[in-house]
Amino acid sequence: MAPSRYRPGLLNAITDVPGVKVGHLTCHEGDRIRTGVTAIVPHAGNVFQEKVPAALGVFNGFGKFAGSTQIEELGEIETPVLLTNTLAVGRGIEAINRYTLAQPGNERVVSLNAVVGETNDSRLNDIRAERPTVDEMLAALATAKPGPVEEGAVGAGTGTVAFGMKGGIGTSSRQVPVSEETYTLGVLVQSNYGGALMINGRLYRLDDDDMKKHDKDGSIVMVVATDAPLCSRNLKRLAERCFGGLARTGAALSNGSGDYALAFSTAATVRRTPERRKSIAEYSVLSNDVVSPLFEALIEATEEAILNSITMAKTTRGYDAGTGKPSTVHAISLDVLRRL
Amino acid sequence: MAPSRYRPGLLNAITDVPGVKVGHLTCHEGDRIRTGVTAIVPHAGNVFQEKVPAALGVFNGFGKFAGSTQIEELGEIETPVLLTNTLAVGRGIEAINRYTLAQPGNERVVSLNAVVGETNDSRLNDIRAERPTVDEMLAALATAKPGPVEEGAVGAGTGTVAFGMKGGIGTSSRQVPVSEETYTLGVLVQSNYGGALMINGRLYRLDDDDMKKHDKDGSIVMVVATDAPLCSRNLKRLAERCFGGLARTGAALSNGSGDYALAFSTAATVRRTPERRKSIAEYSVLSNDVVSPLFEALIEATEEAILNSITMAKTTRGYDAGTGKPSTVHAISLDVLRRL
Amino acid sequence: MAPSRYRPGLLNAITDVPGVKVGHLTCHEGDRIRTGVTAIVPHAGNVFQEKVPAALGVFNGFGKFAGSTQIEELGEIETPVLLTNTLAVGRGIEAINRYTLAQPGNERVVSLNAVVGETNDSRLNDIRAERPTVDEMLAALATAKPGPVEEGAVGAGTGTVAFGMKGGIGTSSRQVPVSEETYTLGVLVQSNYGGALMINGRLYRLDDDDMKKHDKDGSIVMVVATDAPLCSRNLKRLAERCFGGLARTGAALSNGSGDYALAFSTAATVRRTPERRKSIAEYSVLSNDVVSPLFEALIEATEEAILNSITMAKTTRGYDAGTGKPSTVHAISLDVLRRL
Amino acid sequence: MAPSRYRPGLLNAITDVPGVKVGHLTCHEGDRIRTGVTAIVPHAGNVFQEKVPAALGVFNGFGKFAGSTQIEELGEIETPVLLTNTLAVGRGIEAINRYTLAQPGNERVVSLNAVVGETNDSRLNDIRAERPTVDEMLAALATAKPGPVEEGAVGAGTGTVAFGMKGGIGTSSRQVPVSEETYTLGVLVQSNYGGALMINGRLYRLDDDDMKKHDKDGSIVMVVATDAPLCSRNLKRLAERCFGGLARTGAALSNGSGDYALAFSTAATVRRTPERRKSIAEYSVLSNDVVSPLFEALIEATEEAILNSITMAKTTRGYDAGTGKPSTVHAISLDVLRRL
Repeated sequence: MAPSRYRPGLLNAITDVPGVKVGHLTCHEGDRIRTGVTAIVPHAGNVFQEKVPAALGVFNGFGKFAGSTQIEELGEIETPVLLTNTLAVGRGIEAINRYTLAQPGNERVVSLNAVVGETNDSRLNDIRAERPTVDEMLAALATAKPGPVEEGAVGAGTGTVAFGMKGGIGTSSRQVPVSEETYTLGVLVQSNYGGALMINGRLYRLDDDDMKKHDKDGSIVMVVATDAPLCSRNLKRLAERCFGGLARTGAALSNGSGDYALAFSTAATVRRTPERRKSIAEYSVLSNDVVSPLFEALIEATEEAILNSITMAKTTRGYDAGTGKPSTVHAISLDVLRRL
Repeated sequence: MAPSRYRPGLLNAITDVPGVKVGHLTCHEGDRIRTGVTAIVPHAGNVFQEKVPAALGVFNGFGKFAGSTQIEELGEIETPVLLTNTLAVGRGIEAINRYTLAQPGNERVVSLNAVVGETNDSRLNDIRAERPTVDEMLAALATAKPGPVEEGAVGAGTGTVAFGMKGGIGTSSRQVPVSEETYTLGVLVQSNYGGALMINGRLYRLDDDDMKKHDKDGSIVMVVATDAPLCSRNLKRLAERCFGGLARTGAALSNGSGDYALAFSTAATVRRTPERRKSIAEYSVLSNDVVSPLFEALIEATEEAILNSITMAKTTRGYDAGTGKPSTVHAISLDVLRRL
Repeated sequence: MAPSRYRPGLLNAITDVPGVKVGHLTCHEGDRIRTGVTAIVPHAGNVFQEKVPAALGVFNGFGKFAGSTQIEELGEIETPVLLTNTLAVGRGIEAINRYTLAQPGNERVVSLNAVVGETNDSRLNDIRAERPTVDEMLAALATAKPGPVEEGAVGAGTGTVAFGMKGGIGTSSRQVPVSEETYTLGVLVQSNYGGALMINGRLYRLDDDDMKKHDKDGSIVMVVATDAPLCSRNLKRLAERCFGGLARTGAALSNGSGDYALAFSTAATVRRTPERRKSIAEYSVLSNDVVSPLFEALIEATEEAILNSITMAKTTRGYDAGTGKPSTVHAISLDVLRRL
Repeated sequence: MAPSRYRPGLLNAITDVPGVKVGHLTCHEGDRIRTGVTAIVPHAGNVFQEKVPAALGVFNGFGKFAGSTQIEELGEIETPVLLTNTLAVGRGIEAINRYTLAQPGNERVVSLNAVVGETNDSRLNDIRAERPTVDEMLAALATAKPGPVEEGAVGAGTGTVAFGMKGGIGTSSRQVPVSEETYTLGVLVQSNYGGALMINGRLYRLDDDDMKKHDKDGSIVMVVATDAPLCSRNLKRLAERCFGGLARTGAALSNGSGDYALAFSTAATVRRTPERRKSIAEYSVLSNDVVSPLFEALIEATEEAILNSITMAKTTRGYDAGTGKPSTVHAISLDVLRRL
């Protein structure tokens, strides 16, 4: 929406990065269950055996992101990433553990670092009801696939709320020339935060009813994949640029918002294969001096992914677990959107 | 063991800090299950409603410590702490969630930050077997009590290994004069790391058999409680002094060792009660200029707690999940100890 | 410029926070010297004796900010803050040392932590020429005063460049209701970075000549003062919200941009007086749960301070030390501004 | 002194790492000036043009270490390292700037990140007297050379105090087999901290006079060089292992001790040459899985370097700038040493 300087990839999705797969499992049942899980798989191989360099940026750590300290220490992830609700992180870890232990080649694995992000969908979901289950999370992992990514009130975005409107899952991608190469980066977000939504610099106005219910707390998790060969240090810097895109949407960056960005590289030249991990190994990486275009492209990709998460989400009726009452969160108004 | 400058508390245990409770659940079954869980409860009230200031020190983040980013951001914990094995962290979170949601007064709680530490007991335990269960963890929480703390191969220490010998749970405490007051601090450790054990400056020698099996990787989690009124920033500095005690034991501080220290204050003047959390509130805290005695006392308390964890642990036969074979880890030799 | 939800203070300047003083010393000499220094003094007393809680946020640490590790460790500053150019940080430390050692009451001071921020003005200034001198920095400290703050190409902003246009010093303030009180926060920036300037959501277009010379690298230092009683942990969170305002202006957040934000509180209830530092002391602070309005207000205040730094800066001719040639950087075009 | 598992290099000094040079400038004048500067030069080339990967570990950030944020962000240093006294850091930056700007090939350099560490020698030195001067620092840089390194009360160690005894400069090195190669690491320390000195596990006792004057505050800066090819992330982990050696000496790790460790790699395969910095480049680095021997060797090397700094330092009479009175700090007692 903002002036775009970089071309999106074919699908304008995180799956434009070759090898990346996404799977959603949506729990929309009865009056109260509005939650789910979204799986992002870094590559088609055994991720535990072929680890990818990665880094986590934490803007506001009011959240329960699992796996953070090991990502920071070792500069890598060794499992897929799950996004889900705040009280489901334990089950997310359990699911990733089962998934990884069961993979061929992992028969003797006795330690692994599950990566699970979350936001709080309790304004529409009976979050205390222990959904999604471990099996539902395994189902999201099992169905992860390349290709188009469903957006809006789906998977981990089923019950989330952004700017007082229905938020959810959004994605986008960019093709970024760096030196002589063109790299792809993609971002997928689970939007659940507040503020005063800015689109093209215009303030989007809620109607009075929604305004009253607007709670600026909430959170966002942003997952970035790229085939640019970056070391973990520059992946951390890349991840942190997501917060630039977040800020541009008008985020209030409030006390209660857990704002996290994870970035990983799928490039073969930085893949941490069993051979490379044995001793000394060669890695081809981009230097500090040339990474700026990736940074700039990610700011705009993140802004777009967030707006996609909102414009693709439909009005959802559910249950406010904080008050114990039914609740409705409206989709963004097309009328107002048209007038912007 | 090292020259002690501060007097221990009555029990020489973390439970010397008034209000702190500890519970163990030990899983020692058949040939293969040698694991468990240890619960540390900060005070007798509803910890979610009456949060305590806290901080986490991470020396080597090769571990799966749950709750880290929120502790850092908000400077507090709002649940008990569980220690368990590496692949049980997800179940630990699930247990703390259930425990907290079920407490009277928490009927509308929709977000909470479970704190779970771990080390890897797979040299004696079939860690892939999904023990302890969520129910076993809830049992550890239910049985937590003040008073003497069992040490050695118990609870989360059932299957751990330190310096090629049987490690486990150890604890100690110190009474520390600061300005006009005397405060108590206590530490409880789950020892599972390697190196060359130093006791009173003498190198403890393994016998040849144990030496061959000695793997310097492993981890340690250290939990510190104190009734000294410290803000979260000084609790972080306090927690980090545990690494001084750890180093003095001869720790190799290797790549594979996840070394974590959590510290919290039980002092009423820093308790984050519902009233205080509503707006502006008064807190009485110790200034930077006077905290050094607490730092120094914790170094020696940690060293002693670690040595206690080893000297109290008994020879354990179990199952090495990394090789799929039976294994035995010997207790420290009393003969050698006597000669030191 | 962006939709404003909080009222500015009387001067719309960092000096709206009672006690805060600002002084500029501008070096504009001959063809080549276009640099200077800006001093921010936290309060009218002896800052070394009466320290103020403070914190530093680092978004991109490509910079030479002096004093960072001690601010983080102790949560305070004990000197005024100087902003200057990249190669003048050493002289800035020297100046703060002399200033502080010479203050009555500091006759036995033997350690102090000078705080100096910088951006690189070498696109207009012969930065290798060792200006400002230590004496010039002392002059800026000596002339610091409350009241209106000059903006634009003055003091540390004499030679800076933002978005390919003349940048410089900008300031703004907000009055923020929190619980039953209204607090003031003010921000002062030294803008010297790049990107695609957004004003009210509209992209500001450079003319072709300026576009060619536009280098997105550069930096920004933002200094925040508030009379809200915040502990150092929440001051760090506050400081980090500056990056939200920075992002909203269209910053490219490039590799070469050193982006720093320092925040301190002038509130008497958190002042670290000699008495309080002696042992245990009472501090009244705002809780995590109520700080969000301050966060939100600072985002918008920072955005405005940056825009002020640009709109107040006048076209400057100088010397490009990187190429060794004369250079001119134009003020923002009023024509284009009017059309926005 | 502690049981050694790794062989020292030929000189048992940081200069065993090929290319590393050290220079001291000692200011020992009249009754009051007991200070100096020590320069460590990473390699014989132009360090600004051929940067080396580096990282800083901060255990207790009560210090004025210059250059910290850029080292963390970019993972490199681009200048020599100076160690000096607390109030001389500004002059140290100035000296490094002049030195670097004057090097052939740096005629157009307009930004550089000077690295200066310090401890406080005011117990023996009139630290307020602005020595060493910028010129004296330049002299230390000019005289830096490979070969044996003078230890004790020399250079930046002229006026420092450790464990209530005369401290100073110490160094040591180790040869470390990793995979098929043997690498060298060296460490140089400026010791100026307190605690209860442990040598071979025995507590070293001060005599009563020295005991009364023993101030546990103080600081230590440790600089590590290695020819092992490590990325900046693993250099950070390496640097942090210095704190293990520090703790083993009996350090009190007090509030007032600024404890810093800087590590850099001189390996050609990780050198950041102008060619490599232009775009994508190959780097050969050791993987996480094999770095542990370097970690372990550095713990013991640091312990020895510290003990060397003390055993090589001679009794020094000077001036206590904190009290304004003459002072004497005794060398470690050979009598007591012999009895250990």
